[in-house]
Amino acid sequence: MRVVVPFAAETPKTRLEAVLSPSERSTVARAMLADVLRAIVEAGHEPTVVSTAPLDLAALDLPGEVASAASVTVDERALTTAVNARLPGGDDANSDGDADPDAVAVVMADLALATPDAIERLLTADADVAIAPGRGGGTNALAVRHPEFRVDYHGTSYLDHREIAREIGATVSTVDSFRLATDVDEPEDLVEVLVHGREQDRAPDCLRAFGFELDATDGRVAIARDDGDAETDSD
Amino acid sequence: MRVVVPFAAETPKTRLEAVLSPSERSTVARAMLADVLRAIVEAGHEPTVVSTAPLDLAALDLPGEVASAASVTVDERALTTAVNARLPGGDDANSDGDADPDAVAVVMADLALATPDAIERLLTADADVAIAPGRGGGTNALAVRHPEFRVDYHGTSYLDHREIAREIGATVSTVDSFRLATDVDEPEDLVEVLVHGREQDRAPDCLRAFGFELDATDGRVAIARDDGDAETDSD
Repeated sequence: MRVVVPFAAETPKTRLEAVLSPSERSTVARAMLADVLRAIVEAGHEPTVVSTAPLDLAALDLPGEVASAASVTVDERALTTAVNARLPGGDDANSDGDADPDAVAVVMADLALATPDAIERLLTADADVAIAPGRGGGTNALAVRHPEFRVDYHGTSYLDHREIAREIGATVSTVDSFRLATDVDEPEDLVEVLVHGREQDRAPDCLRAFGFELDATDGRVAIARDDGDAETDSD
Repeated sequence: MRVVVPFAAETPKTRLEAVLSPSERSTVARAMLADVLRAIVEAGHEPTVVSTAPLDLAALDLPGEVASAASVTVDERALTTAVNARLPGGDDANSDGDADPDAVAVVMADLALATPDAIERLLTADADVAIAPGRGGGTNALAVRHPEFRVDYHGTSYLDHREIAREIGATVSTVDSFRLATDVDEPEDLVEVLVHGREQDRAPDCLRAFGFELDATDGRVAIARDDGDAETDSD
């Protein structure tokens, strides 16, 4: 299945600004993207990064088989518009060179806990539209097999996407995955990366290199940062 | 499989005190417990509520088949101690009258999104210890088939439980479930109950009766409350 990975290349992860400088946020966002791409490729699929600005995949230093399976295309439009153009029946459904425009998956670039198993559960769900919800009513990943389905990422998109599917008579399956439900937006989400990141993942190593570690000293788990080498956040 | 459901009957859900009065918190906690018990029974198992204080199951007004399958036992000890006594090989492994002390599951009473499918994935996982993690490194549900495994719910219990399993040579499986990962502790967790609660669930109806609804007016989803009928929280 064609898998689209939208990526905000210019201002990634602004809600992490309390704990990471702009350049650190960019580094962490690219590490998570690399981990997501590897999970997709290990699940047997070829991801296309749809980036809001030019992105040098070579600079991500991806493993060989991931680098050869992944590609990037630039689309400056808003997320919803850029995704809809690439869904089955969309204006650009064939623009990324895939021979099968009948099924398209959309996987967000900040699903740092994604594994091949979780991706496979999404892509093999038996429905016209499979949705992996995020916390707060969001949509973290989709697999679309219906030519009339379109996304709308604003607001309670999980419920909106179910309603859109209902209106066009498309069957819906909800993929019950903690890994796909965990998008990394807020400082507290970094805990999940450190707890559940896999050995070969980039993002946990990246956070540790920035001085983050788990802190359970008060009974609840948080992140702590050794600020000795931290950059100053000036934005 | 024997399924233990620990329940803090006296001071439930204190982290919801910003949005719910003590009596409301008690009502919501019991609604979630009722939903969890029904999911367990619909998955084909007989839950035992291990309550910190006497609890009248009849007052929960459970559906007939749930009421007849569920039982309650009082244990005033701390969570870790009360659970360990009931695990395979524990001091009270047979105290709740089950004939098979070789396998015990522990499912928290605040997993308001639990479904029979998610429960079944936990209970059928092929490992000595199956763990459904919660956010922040917690352990929301366990299925234990090893006589030496013991829990420790303090701190990063998910990582600690993996380590305890490793030390005794027990195999571990992590159950990747958003529904089991969602324990309802904080006000923002109520969003998940309203978004993902099933039609027959009590907890969403309970929250709606208290005036809560989804609010996506600023683009992010939160809960809003019509405070016209709210009780005053005096604790």
